Amino acid sequence: MSQEKLKFVIIGGGAGGISAASTARGLASPNSSVTLFTEFEDVAYSPCGIPFVHGREIPDFKNLFLQTAEHYTGIGIDIRYNTKVTGINLDKKFVSVGSEKFPWDRLIIATGFEYGNPDIPGIDLDGVHYVKNIRRAMEFDKKLDSIKKIAVLSASPLGIEMAGNLAQRGIETHLVDEGGWLMSEVADPDIMEPVQESFEELGVKMHFGTKAHEIRGQNSKVKSLMTSKGEIECEVVIVATHKVPNNTLSREAGIKVGSTGGVLVDDHMRTGVDGVYAAGDCTEVVHGVTEIPIQGLSGSHAYSQGRIAGANAAGDNRAYDPVYVPWGMVGGKIQIGGVSLGETLHKALGIPHVVAFSQGISRARYYPGVTRMRVKLIADPKTHRVLGAQMAGGEGIKERADFLAFSIKRKATLEDFAWMENVYSPPIGALMEPIALAAQAGLAKLANV
Amino acid sequence: MSQEKLKFVIIGGGAGGISAASTARGLASPNSSVTLFTEFEDVAYSPCGIPFVHGREIPDFKNLFLQTAEHYTGIGIDIRYNTKVTGINLDKKFVSVGSEKFPWDRLIIATGFEYGNPDIPGIDLDGVHYVKNIRRAMEFDKKLDSIKKIAVLSASPLGIEMAGNLAQRGIETHLVDEGGWLMSEVADPDIMEPVQESFEELGVKMHFGTKAHEIRGQNSKVKSLMTSKGEIECEVVIVATHKVPNNTLSREAGIKVGSTGGVLVDDHMRTGVDGVYAAGDCTEVVHGVTEIPIQGLSGSHAYSQGRIAGANAAGDNRAYDPVYVPWGMVGGKIQIGGVSLGETLHKALGIPHVVAFSQGISRARYYPGVTRMRVKLIADPKTHRVLGAQMAGGEGIKERADFLAFSIKRKATLEDFAWMENVYSPPIGALMEPIALAAQAGLAKLANV
Repeated sequence: MSQEKLKFVIIGGGAGGISAASTARGLASPNSSVTLFTEFEDVAYSPCGIPFVHGREIPDFKNLFLQTAEHYTGIGIDIRYNTKVTGINLDKKFVSVGSEKFPWDRLIIATGFEYGNPDIPGIDLDGVHYVKNIRRAMEFDKKLDSIKKIAVLSASPLGIEMAGNLAQRGIETHLVDEGGWLMSEVADPDIMEPVQESFEELGVKMHFGTKAHEIRGQNSKVKSLMTSKGEIECEVVIVATHKVPNNTLSREAGIKVGSTGGVLVDDHMRTGVDGVYAAGDCTEVVHGVTEIPIQGLSGSHAYSQGRIAGANAAGDNRAYDPVYVPWGMVGGKIQIGGVSLGETLHKALGIPHVVAFSQGISRARYYPGVTRMRVKLIADPKTHRVLGAQMAGGEGIKERADFLAFSIKRKATLEDFAWMENVYSPPIGALMEPIALAAQAGLAKLANV
Repeated sequence: MSQEKLKFVIIGGGAGGISAASTARGLASPNSSVTLFTEFEDVAYSPCGIPFVHGREIPDFKNLFLQTAEHYTGIGIDIRYNTKVTGINLDKKFVSVGSEKFPWDRLIIATGFEYGNPDIPGIDLDGVHYVKNIRRAMEFDKKLDSIKKIAVLSASPLGIEMAGNLAQRGIETHLVDEGGWLMSEVADPDIMEPVQESFEELGVKMHFGTKAHEIRGQNSKVKSLMTSKGEIECEVVIVATHKVPNNTLSREAGIKVGSTGGVLVDDHMRTGVDGVYAAGDCTEVVHGVTEIPIQGLSGSHAYSQGRIAGANAAGDNRAYDPVYVPWGMVGGKIQIGGVSLGETLHKALGIPHVVAFSQGISRARYYPGVTRMRVKLIADPKTHRVLGAQMAGGEGIKERADFLAFSIKRKATLEDFAWMENVYSPPIGALMEPIALAAQAGLAKLANV
């Protein structure tokens, strides 16, 4: 696209950094250089797969690697592994690695996230584990066979994936959370109820309304987790708290961060500093329904943002739309997911809403493998516009979340969903689509007010 | 809703008739009467499940019954079983059952479909079977254990379901079709290719470009099917040809039928005769993209149309939108589906189009159970509006077809899909949604023209 000879520097080797580098490389002139710095040993693996290797759903960590180092060399991306960028100079346009300086014409910041550190005594003990780097995960996995008891801090999405997989591995697993139910910060209790039941079957010990006070050790190794409700014996504490943007570098350089701690970017992923872009978990972006800035989204969001940042850095002109945040995951044996905010957050934020709820089925009710599906649509009581959704079921949650995100972005109403056309075929879909049933229930409720 | 005392008469006990009767019953005044006539022994079972009982995917025919006769008595619907309506008098507002007359204030015609009869010698032989009535299916199923060879006429959706299930049952199954590939009237060859491979593995013998000439018999029993390409020995011939609206009664009464043979209805499912409505496979409705009338849709469509007809007959004012026809089914071990027209029909109709194709995956590529998914979007080359879609894969086809139908109705473009947000979670969704990948491929193709 651009014929200019430019130096592209990318900080960070996660989904945002890698997609930015690849996109810039594809659009920049061949005589441009694309250099990516990562403090880790690897890029292009799937950190999201780690819990499932621990749970033996996936046989080996090597399955998680998606590209080789040679691939990137081959397409002309210079990746500097084990290389921590220590400073960004915006005036003189270089990044520092210790005393070394690397000049840039275009800089893309994709420094990702860290786990919000619970500021409690004992957090540095041997046995406190963070799920992020694949090499640490490999070492951790080797120890798991001899470990009997683990406490997971907190019932976040990652905490739930870890707890489910560790319990499946046969380890006594304690899930400790200050909230009243699983994923209480984002999900509704009625949606998480089947996951909780599944966890009970798997033997996960759930401690709700429980605050971690201290990690106790012996010979500098974890011995127990002291909580507001008593002591939990364990050899390992896994920190799976909420994600916090990793922006020390940006802050020190004078790049503006927003209210969430994420780098402020416009709809072109520009930071406001000429030639400097940001993408992924280190940024904050606009939520499409509430119009407030949010952070801590998925690898898929990071990847898209990286594509936008990389393309624009290379001279393209692409906008990134506000996000509606379809999400989905597996908790125990249950799939859960949603779009935008659930009922709990609508209540907490004081947004007028009506809840449209129904329980449907994923296939014909007589077909083997059929599962029940809870669908909840949260709608504006006046316009009937759907504002958010949450679901739980046995299959098809991810696809429905994508569908609902797309539709909610385009201002679909309860009426639209109530009369939607749907596939009916006994092995793959029921006569009545669960989303339509929920919308119909919502309209019936509104008609009776 | 209505306080008037009215006589509702419904002809037909399939999805359209049953939903019309139930909806009218719910909205009509309690002193109104709702009478439904069916020539069969049962209502409220799922005919779509029949092939899967033959294939032993579903253990028993009794699983297919969804409601009891007592249920309808209980809610005040008078069902006349084994009762063939022989005439409709529009002037004097009654239907005849032989010499008996039943007056109506509101009439809903839901007479369904018949299989287009291949007009060949031998069609009346013992051993020619139609998949429709559940009692006949039960009798047929008992014979299957002693049957060795079956020919299925043609590679229609039902023909494919029957062939796959009979082959799975261990019967030598021949699928005979005049077209060049499976479901050639609606689906594209590249989409049906994985189904064909699956059929080869299952041992289904496919005869394409093959016309049935004669069913030959011995002692009035089927002995073979004579075709344009030779004789196929078989004890049974299953007629699974295209659906034709069953409108002899309506035609004789003077109710107007359209170019497809379906009863002409407006957007309120009104026939044009005061107080007379129609719903389901006996009607034709408007296709949302091409704006031409079509017939032969799904049980889900019939059900929705019945709801509209029943509600309007009872005094409500509900419109039925043009249809975009999401479809999906299982062929062999493969799920296939789509929305509106595929590439083949766009070509045949001379509609300018670009094909956006990609192969994606249903979960993270390292996650057990991951399957490949072909997604093809057919778009307007000028506006980039998506006009139709076809897909093949291992999971999630029905949900994607619903999504695409909803989006295409709302005029979504390749750009919309290329940048759609999607759930990423290794066990249930890949980093890149296959629909987005197809849209991206389409845009890249358009950019290079």
